Amino acid sequence: MLKVKIIGTGGYGGVGITELLLGHPEAEIVCMVDPSNAGKSIGDVHPHLDGLCSLVVCSMEAPEAQEPADVVFMATPDKVGMELAPVEIEKGAKVIDYSGDFRFNHLATYEDYASRLGLDVVHQAPDLLKESVYGLSELRRESLNASTRVVGNPGCFAVSALLGMAPAAKSGMIDLNSIIFDAKTGVSGAGKTPRPSFHYPARYENMNAYRLSGHQHVCEIEHELARLSGYPIHVTFTAQVVPICRGIMTTCYAKTTSDIDESALYDMYVEFYKNDPFVRVYPSDKVTGTVHVRESNYCNLVVSHDPRTGTMRIVSHIDNLMKGQAGSALQNMNLLFDLDETLGLALPGRFP
Amino acid sequence: MLKVKIIGTGGYGGVGITELLLGHPEAEIVCMVDPSNAGKSIGDVHPHLDGLCSLVVCSMEAPEAQEPADVVFMATPDKVGMELAPVEIEKGAKVIDYSGDFRFNHLATYEDYASRLGLDVVHQAPDLLKESVYGLSELRRESLNASTRVVGNPGCFAVSALLGMAPAAKSGMIDLNSIIFDAKTGVSGAGKTPRPSFHYPARYENMNAYRLSGHQHVCEIEHELARLSGYPIHVTFTAQVVPICRGIMTTCYAKTTSDIDESALYDMYVEFYKNDPFVRVYPSDKVTGTVHVRESNYCNLVVSHDPRTGTMRIVSHIDNLMKGQAGSALQNMNLLFDLDETLGLALPGRFP
Amino acid sequence: MLKVKIIGTGGYGGVGITELLLGHPEAEIVCMVDPSNAGKSIGDVHPHLDGLCSLVVCSMEAPEAQEPADVVFMATPDKVGMELAPVEIEKGAKVIDYSGDFRFNHLATYEDYASRLGLDVVHQAPDLLKESVYGLSELRRESLNASTRVVGNPGCFAVSALLGMAPAAKSGMIDLNSIIFDAKTGVSGAGKTPRPSFHYPARYENMNAYRLSGHQHVCEIEHELARLSGYPIHVTFTAQVVPICRGIMTTCYAKTTSDIDESALYDMYVEFYKNDPFVRVYPSDKVTGTVHVRESNYCNLVVSHDPRTGTMRIVSHIDNLMKGQAGSALQNMNLLFDLDETLGLALPGRFP
Amino acid sequence: MLKVKIIGTGGYGGVGITELLLGHPEAEIVCMVDPSNAGKSIGDVHPHLDGLCSLVVCSMEAPEAQEPADVVFMATPDKVGMELAPVEIEKGAKVIDYSGDFRFNHLATYEDYASRLGLDVVHQAPDLLKESVYGLSELRRESLNASTRVVGNPGCFAVSALLGMAPAAKSGMIDLNSIIFDAKTGVSGAGKTPRPSFHYPARYENMNAYRLSGHQHVCEIEHELARLSGYPIHVTFTAQVVPICRGIMTTCYAKTTSDIDESALYDMYVEFYKNDPFVRVYPSDKVTGTVHVRESNYCNLVVSHDPRTGTMRIVSHIDNLMKGQAGSALQNMNLLFDLDETLGLALPGRFP
Repeated sequence: MLKVKIIGTGGYGGVGITELLLGHPEAEIVCMVDPSNAGKSIGDVHPHLDGLCSLVVCSMEAPEAQEPADVVFMATPDKVGMELAPVEIEKGAKVIDYSGDFRFNHLATYEDYASRLGLDVVHQAPDLLKESVYGLSELRRESLNASTRVVGNPGCFAVSALLGMAPAAKSGMIDLNSIIFDAKTGVSGAGKTPRPSFHYPARYENMNAYRLSGHQHVCEIEHELARLSGYPIHVTFTAQVVPICRGIMTTCYAKTTSDIDESALYDMYVEFYKNDPFVRVYPSDKVTGTVHVRESNYCNLVVSHDPRTGTMRIVSHIDNLMKGQAGSALQNMNLLFDLDETLGLALPGRFP
Repeated sequence: MLKVKIIGTGGYGGVGITELLLGHPEAEIVCMVDPSNAGKSIGDVHPHLDGLCSLVVCSMEAPEAQEPADVVFMATPDKVGMELAPVEIEKGAKVIDYSGDFRFNHLATYEDYASRLGLDVVHQAPDLLKESVYGLSELRRESLNASTRVVGNPGCFAVSALLGMAPAAKSGMIDLNSIIFDAKTGVSGAGKTPRPSFHYPARYENMNAYRLSGHQHVCEIEHELARLSGYPIHVTFTAQVVPICRGIMTTCYAKTTSDIDESALYDMYVEFYKNDPFVRVYPSDKVTGTVHVRESNYCNLVVSHDPRTGTMRIVSHIDNLMKGQAGSALQNMNLLFDLDETLGLALPGRFP
Repeated sequence: MLKVKIIGTGGYGGVGITELLLGHPEAEIVCMVDPSNAGKSIGDVHPHLDGLCSLVVCSMEAPEAQEPADVVFMATPDKVGMELAPVEIEKGAKVIDYSGDFRFNHLATYEDYASRLGLDVVHQAPDLLKESVYGLSELRRESLNASTRVVGNPGCFAVSALLGMAPAAKSGMIDLNSIIFDAKTGVSGAGKTPRPSFHYPARYENMNAYRLSGHQHVCEIEHELARLSGYPIHVTFTAQVVPICRGIMTTCYAKTTSDIDESALYDMYVEFYKNDPFVRVYPSDKVTGTVHVRESNYCNLVVSHDPRTGTMRIVSHIDNLMKGQAGSALQNMNLLFDLDETLGLALPGRFP
Repeated sequence: MLKVKIIGTGGYGGVGITELLLGHPEAEIVCMVDPSNAGKSIGDVHPHLDGLCSLVVCSMEAPEAQEPADVVFMATPDKVGMELAPVEIEKGAKVIDYSGDFRFNHLATYEDYASRLGLDVVHQAPDLLKESVYGLSELRRESLNASTRVVGNPGCFAVSALLGMAPAAKSGMIDLNSIIFDAKTGVSGAGKTPRPSFHYPARYENMNAYRLSGHQHVCEIEHELARLSGYPIHVTFTAQVVPICRGIMTTCYAKTTSDIDESALYDMYVEFYKNDPFVRVYPSDKVTGTVHVRESNYCNLVVSHDPRTGTMRIVSHIDNLMKGQAGSALQNMNLLFDLDETLGLALPGRFP
């Protein structure tokens, strides 16, 4: 059994990986760290888990938090992972970090990212950054293995956008200057802290765009698309929030450069993902929505092409807290420890 | 007092214009027609109106339905207006029709529209079609006046898309081949009839695209944009549904052809709508959402421009049942009878 | 035109009375006070009102806040009204206070109320308290008139419970020891300040009871029922919150002492409210819900009686922000100034 | 591995047991029957299961539907189970029926039940009825074992009400004539078929009572409470629907006959359920709601007592589709086959 430590238990990212690990046959949570909940049982922090887990949350300074683990999930904000990961790795653990701290191998890209969030652009663990791997398994599986020590778990918007555009970007069949991502997220993507715009009465009948001047997930999207296509890429990205709890639907647009039609596009997508158990590719008349990936690790892609305007359009659906966060994190853990990639993840959500 | 007849009382379109007319100082509902609710009081058909209106709904054949009115609102499906409008006009009424029956002056455009819905492409009132006026007041105010006999009230998606793109299309500053509308609607846009995909448990946590092969509102969008720009236009349009009741948010994209920046774009939009009481233009850092136009006749436009990709992006917000339907219909009535355009419409929605 | 001052503009209570007054033909808002929003336009504080009202919110110390008004609405927390009302009354205004400060004429009852909220039990305006009138028009209309200087606007739960139980309590036909109110409220009842339990993701699929040890609205419920029945009364009251925005549904139970049947009970309720324009009484097979009183000043009562257990059951529906707050406040203003009780209030909500 | 047949795959009951069985280590679905979906893959019927199950749904007449199974779940409407159960039992299966067909051992009780639903009161399998067991494990565990051939799975409202009231009813400490259940259910309890009152726009901001003249679940509630207390019992029961998908909250009231206080009441409930892994008993200040039992088999009970009125109040929370349906069904299967009662059920829901 892998010994697992979770740092940042109290938030949505922490509870998501906890729920998954409680059902994983080869891993066991041995330590949960969360300064603001130290001393509380899991049942007090997350009442729905009362009776299913008997651990007590501890502080960073607690003796049990010093014990080595096989893998550490850092469900923590930016800047925490770069401080703590080296310590955990020193003790022999592999680290999977949820924040942007290890999503880029280059300092320059990190700086662009950090500046978009108004953060200090200096990275505190530049050596570790060099060896980190971007944890989107479908695009980086070959680098996610026993030799990997630190994984930068991808941003939720980036997962939806990249899985939607990767095959096209790699194919050479689109105008790389024409890429637009129109992304809609559920509210859980904003985390657990109450804010006026996520107060129930202000949100239940509201949708809006935000951060129009530039969302930080654009960095990893452009970085990965450039890697796939071989060209530097700028994309237009719109972040929008709608009143659902879980789910991201990103509609991905690009002008097609060749005489590709919808059928050929669909075949290309099916081929690209033929070995990816969590990507389901559908033709344009498939009835699917975010509810069909809710609480599962799947990404559903609907492929369409408008011949009138020469525009391809991929509608990409994920659960932002699963494939967009804890699910991808667990998928990465499975790969790093040479387990079946789907272990503990081949689960249906509950419908309705 | 204008005498008003409403045909199609039972649906969302019928109840919307009823609610507005109950507060209009210059108009009075004298007859409500709805075959499926004939004989029922308004309080039985719409319980929230119990005590506020004492009319009894009648059938098409009822004597009171034969009486002439000054204006007839046809909150009816396609193909009904073209049959009944000539009769009402013959009796001296002006007709405002909610369907696509009178949104186009040309038979060819109507045929494209009707074929997208799988309807008979033959128009039953071709002479009346020629004189009909497309009822989007902000773009057609000069044609909406005492001489107008029949108005084709615009489609809800079209209202949001056209108000978002009209200034840019007219300006000559965008690449007309690059226009994309990413449209998200609330569920009330689908009307009152229960269907599996709008059943509460299947919808409350779901968003999805639909009719990817081509939405019928594209016809009127392309037709009006062509009129404004002077060029034939094809646009990419994506219809999506999210779990809110009222509201459309359409994000409008186009490549800019000149060195326009966000500030100049904003000024152009402000100038374009300076005489339009129901259009509010905001800069890109304004916090606004569909909740702020909910139950009102306003359209909120947020103007942004991404210099990295040379793409303008207008986020357009309306209430699909107000500016997208009954509100525009009443605005048209006011114009046709030379009343203040805002009469009975300068009302706030209720927040939250 | 009555000159109206609103103190506490930024919250849900303030915006509610603002929306109503913007459509009232005999009243005009002349001053809006809110320390935390001083200097902002109404369009900045409440974006949905942008363009409909051009006032600027001011501080308590601003010169315009010192001007006398005919009526002052105090949409403020407990303890503010008792401090400010004497000053406004001194200047000649009538005061309608939203909090519990003036809901009771007796210091002892106020003390019970204040202690339930953990507030200082000492009342700062005991003389004014003596002349205050409880502002539930249907039960206190005879005391709400030109001579009234201060009104304690009722609590939202209390409105629903009292309108549901008043006829039975007065009738002598029920066991006064058996009264139970099972009350469910929408989230807007908790106000505008974000809190963890009203964060969208934590609330959208959640219902729960709260404050089981004793809700403060019980005081005014028991006080008014005692007044109606002539006997001291203790009731069981359960406050529960469900994921809607607006609405309270309170199911009111009592054992019937005589051989009353459902039909007689219904007739008694109809008779009791025959002169109340905002109370609609329905038999037990009526299909109605909170959506049918949403955004209106109506209270819908469904009357039923279970002969198997000798229990009457009244299902009482209101909009907590309308009949439960701003609507009742405006109704009180109309009565105090001898205007038609329904002026500016005979409005339908919007459906759906 | 137990071979499982599911009859009625397409509805919420069918999909619920399917989701659970896909993760059960000792059971395997071998046949799915549903006439209206015959020939479709599970991924077509339930898109969220695409890739997780490769069975094809068959008709009743299909050869595979004739094969014997170890256990048959009948997720079917009333009157289907009584026709099909004898056939399956004849082949050696145990039958767990979701409807009211086998919830009562006596024809008279069944007749009362059937008449409330307007069904034919004649039972088609009276002999089998005699041996059927009411499948609420916490109250009937001793009768749910290897000798049981047919189980009447309980109604969702009944589960919440009975778990809330059983300890008190058995204790002799309450006035059995004073029992009131105020029950609120999410919309999924009404099943998958679209209806006007569950259409998203009509439901999202609505709560209402229904079937005030008498809900059919009252029969099993009264029957079980009589069994526990030793006295015939009539209860007052109010069914209400609120806009959530999953969850029932039933507030259970009764007058206490002795000098019991909240602490003693709480201890009694803890003691009663000390061996029940899926019942969690909490004191009155516990913050819990339906979200904390969502998608799990738990029942959360909050115990309170109002000494002012001598009334006990238990707030009972379940997921209507889990403990209220599929979860209880699987719990029954485990008991019937002498498996650990929690096998495949000790799962957390997903939060948020």
